Amino acid sequence: MSVKEVKVCIIGAGISGLKTAHTLLNDPRSKFTKDDVLIVEGQDYIGGRVLTDKTSSKLGYSYDLGGAWFHDALTNVVLKESIEDKSFDLNKDGYFDDLEHVYYHNDHKGELPYNKWRLNKVGEELFKFIEIYYYESLDRKDMNLLEITDIYIERYGDRLTPEQIKYLHQVARYSELWFGVASDKISAKYSAMSHEGRNLYNLKGFSFLVDKLLKGIFRENILLNHKVSKINRADKYIETQHGTIKFDYLVVTVPLSILKLPQDHEYGITWEPKLPASMTEAIDKMSFGALGKVIFEFDNIWWDNEIERFVLLSEDLDNKDIGEPLKSLPKKSKYPILAINYAAMHKNEKASLVLLTQSPLTDYVEAHPEEAWEYFKPMLEQIVTKDKKISEPINVMTTKWTQNPYARGSYSAVLPNDDPESIIVQLSGELEGVALSHSPIRFAGEHTISEGDGCIHGAYMSGQREAEWIINNFFFSKKLAKL
Amino acid sequence: MSVKEVKVCIIGAGISGLKTAHTLLNDPRSKFTKDDVLIVEGQDYIGGRVLTDKTSSKLGYSYDLGGAWFHDALTNVVLKESIEDKSFDLNKDGYFDDLEHVYYHNDHKGELPYNKWRLNKVGEELFKFIEIYYYESLDRKDMNLLEITDIYIERYGDRLTPEQIKYLHQVARYSELWFGVASDKISAKYSAMSHEGRNLYNLKGFSFLVDKLLKGIFRENILLNHKVSKINRADKYIETQHGTIKFDYLVVTVPLSILKLPQDHEYGITWEPKLPASMTEAIDKMSFGALGKVIFEFDNIWWDNEIERFVLLSEDLDNKDIGEPLKSLPKKSKYPILAINYAAMHKNEKASLVLLTQSPLTDYVEAHPEEAWEYFKPMLEQIVTKDKKISEPINVMTTKWTQNPYARGSYSAVLPNDDPESIIVQLSGELEGVALSHSPIRFAGEHTISEGDGCIHGAYMSGQREAEWIINNFFFSKKLAKL
Repeated sequence: MSVKEVKVCIIGAGISGLKTAHTLLNDPRSKFTKDDVLIVEGQDYIGGRVLTDKTSSKLGYSYDLGGAWFHDALTNVVLKESIEDKSFDLNKDGYFDDLEHVYYHNDHKGELPYNKWRLNKVGEELFKFIEIYYYESLDRKDMNLLEITDIYIERYGDRLTPEQIKYLHQVARYSELWFGVASDKISAKYSAMSHEGRNLYNLKGFSFLVDKLLKGIFRENILLNHKVSKINRADKYIETQHGTIKFDYLVVTVPLSILKLPQDHEYGITWEPKLPASMTEAIDKMSFGALGKVIFEFDNIWWDNEIERFVLLSEDLDNKDIGEPLKSLPKKSKYPILAINYAAMHKNEKASLVLLTQSPLTDYVEAHPEEAWEYFKPMLEQIVTKDKKISEPINVMTTKWTQNPYARGSYSAVLPNDDPESIIVQLSGELEGVALSHSPIRFAGEHTISEGDGCIHGAYMSGQREAEWIINNFFFSKKLAKL
Repeated sequence: MSVKEVKVCIIGAGISGLKTAHTLLNDPRSKFTKDDVLIVEGQDYIGGRVLTDKTSSKLGYSYDLGGAWFHDALTNVVLKESIEDKSFDLNKDGYFDDLEHVYYHNDHKGELPYNKWRLNKVGEELFKFIEIYYYESLDRKDMNLLEITDIYIERYGDRLTPEQIKYLHQVARYSELWFGVASDKISAKYSAMSHEGRNLYNLKGFSFLVDKLLKGIFRENILLNHKVSKINRADKYIETQHGTIKFDYLVVTVPLSILKLPQDHEYGITWEPKLPASMTEAIDKMSFGALGKVIFEFDNIWWDNEIERFVLLSEDLDNKDIGEPLKSLPKKSKYPILAINYAAMHKNEKASLVLLTQSPLTDYVEAHPEEAWEYFKPMLEQIVTKDKKISEPINVMTTKWTQNPYARGSYSAVLPNDDPESIIVQLSGELEGVALSHSPIRFAGEHTISEGDGCIHGAYMSGQREAEWIINNFFFSKKLAKL
C-alpha cells in the first residue's frame, strides 16, 4: 500500500473534477505544477457522467449517454468558450431542436390536437399557478406535482374544458423527462423551471469537452480504478484500495448519490470525523433522479421525419404508484416518454429514436434492456405514418446509470419536502461563515451549484469555482480553517 | 358658481374612481354615507376608458373600446369577484382566445412558417436575453426595443438562421400591440412581460363592471361634465367650471396623460401649491401610449374562421421613423397589426375583425377613420383564403382615445429612459415616509399600481387601495399630513 502526498487531491474525473484540475494547472494566477494535483477516479474511464458512445451504433451515430444538450444557451459558459476556442462548430456540431413537440395519447387516434385544445397554454398556466401558490406564503406545504395539479383543477376547473381537465395531469407529467423521476416524486414547490435561452443539441457528443480538458491535464494527474473509501479530514488524507493519499486541499466531486450512501456501504465514503450535521442534513434533504435513455435503431424511418420530438403521454391511470420500484414491465403508457428523432436532428435518413425515461422506468429498463422493445413498441405504434408500418429495431441500447454503482442514477432531483437550497449553501462554500467557507475540504459537481444545476455547464463552473478558491487561498491568503 | 363641501372628493368616474366611491360607501368598516362622497367627472358619461359600444355594430356585437380582456386570469380580482357574485358567467361571457397566432409577412406567400422557423423560440430567447442583459448590471443604459434586438443579433447571430435574423425585429415588434407604442419608443429595459395566467376575453363587454359598481353608488354621487381646472391642496378645494368643491380627502384618478399636461393647458390641472418636485419628476419619467382599435364588419367571412388571431408583421423597413407622428397614411405594413377574429371568439359566422394598432398609427387612424380601410386592406389581403376574395367592409369603426382630450391615448407605457417605478412609489402612497404617505390628497388609476398596471383590474385595485386608506385614516387614525 502506497502513501502519496499531493497539494490538491480531487475525487472524481467527471467534468467538475477535470475542470478543477485544468484550472489549477492552467490559470495564469496559479503556480501549481504537475506534481501538485491528483485526480482519483473510482471507475476505469475518464468523464464520469459525460460519456459519448461512438462505437455501439449500427448507423454511425454518436450517442451521449449522459448530458447531450447545451442548456441555457444564453449563459452557458461551456458553449461560449467552446465556440470561442473553436472546439465546437455551431453550424456543424450544434442543432437547436426546438420545433414544437408533437403529442400522442393512447385514447386518441393520431396526433393529439395539443395546441388546438390549448393544452400548451393551460400547461403554462399550471406552472405559473404553482409559482404564485408558493410565492403567496412561505408556509405552504410542499406536495407532489400531481397533487398541486389537483389543487389547480379544484380552483380553476370551471375555466377549463373537459379535454384540458382530462389531459392536464399528463401534460404536467412531461416534466418527468426533465427531472428524471415520476411525478409523484416531483416537488411541486420546485417544479417550475426557468431557462436562460434555448437548448442546443450537441451532435458530436460531449466527449469533445473531456478531450479538451485533458489537453491541459497530464495523464499522470489521473489515477483510474481508485475507489475512495475514507476521507480523514483531521489529518487530511484519503484512503483507496491502493493506499493513502495525503493532501493540503481536497475537492470532492462524487455524485450526490454517493454522498447520500451510508458510510458502511460498499461504495460509500467514511468521513473521519463525521461531516457536521448541517452538511449531512443538507445532503439528506436533496435527492437523486434517474433520467435514462433507450436507443432504438431501425433499417427504415416509419415515422414522420419532419418531427423532431414525439411526446407519448401517459394514460389516465390513477397515478398512485408511479414512483414505486418496478418488479416487472409496467402497463403500456404508464409513463410518458419523450422520443427524439435523431434523423431529423442530423438531417439524414438514418433511423434512430432516442427515448428519454424517468425513474422508476429507467431503473427497470436499464436492468432489463432485453425487455425494452416489448414495452415501448405499443407506445411507438402511435407515431407510425399512414403508409408505413412499425419495424423491429436492428439495435437496442440503454444507458446504465442506475446499474453503475459509481453513478446510481443521473443527477440531482428535488423530491417533495426536499430543500434544494441548503445543499448549495453547505457545499458550494460561497456563503461566508457557513461551515465550509474556509475549509480545505471542498465540493464540486452539478449538485453543488445553483446556476446550471444538474447540467454539464453547472458541473464545469463548480469545478472552476473550487480551483479558483484554492488558488486564492493558497497563493494569496493561506488562511485555512478545518472542516 | 356654487360651493359644495364633501368629505371625499374623487376626480374621475373611471373604474378606479368608481371603485373608490363604491368601497367608501359599501365597505363594512366605513361609515361614510351618501352625502360624504362625490365623484367629479369631466366627460358626459361614466366609465372613462372602460367603454363598451353596444349600438354601432351592424352585426349585433358589443365592442369594448377600452380594455377587453381579463389579463392575469390567475390573480385578477375583478374576474374572481365577478365569477363569485355571478355578474360574469364564465361559460357564456368568457373566452380564452389563446390559440396559437397565425403570422403573415408581405414578402411571404401565405401563412408564415413561424414555428417551423422557430421564430417563437428565438422571440422568447430575445426577451430572456433582455432580462439577463439588464439583470447583469444596474448600470446598463436603457435603449429601445429595436436597438436591444440589434445587440442580441450581434452577440448571437451566429446561432440564428437567415430567416430568424431577417424576421426577428418584426417578431419583437409584436410587443407594440401590447404597449401601444412603436418599438423605437419601447423601453428595452422594461419590455419583458410576465403574465399571471392566461387572458380571458370578455364577450359581453366591461360595461357590466361599471353597471355593477354603480349599483353601490348613488347617481347623485356623480357630477358629469365637471372639468377640474385647479386643485388647491393648501385649502383643500378643487375648482370646476361650475364652482368650487371643498374636501377633506381628494382622490385624483385622472389618467397619467392629464397629469403630464402643462398646468396652463386647457385640459391640465393647476396645483396650488405646485406638487413637490419628487412627484412631478416621477410623472415626467413615465409615458402614455395609444393602443387603438379599428373594427371592420363585413357581410361574409373571407378568412379562415378557425383562426383566432392574425398577426400581420411589419415590413423590413429601416424602422428609423416609426415612432414619429404621421402626416399621411404610412407605407403598407410599416406597422405590425394584430387582427382579432370576432366570429371565432363568438363561435358564430358574423364577420368582424378587430385590429389593434399602436401609436403613431392609432393617432392617425383615429383622426382619419375614413382612410382606415385604404391602409389596412392591402395588409388584410394576406389572410384571404384560397376560395374567397376580400370584400369591402359594411361598417368601419375606430376608437377615439387620442382624439378625446380627457384620455389623450390609451394607458401608461414605458419609453426608453423612463422610470416606471418612481411613479408607483410617488403616487401609490404605499411607501411609508414618501411625500404622499399621510396626505389627504391621494391618487388612483392604472398608472399608480404595479400589480395590474395598465389593466382594468389594476385600476380597480388602486381605487380600493385609496378607499381603504381613507377609511382607515378617517375612522381609525385621523392623523393627516398636508401634501
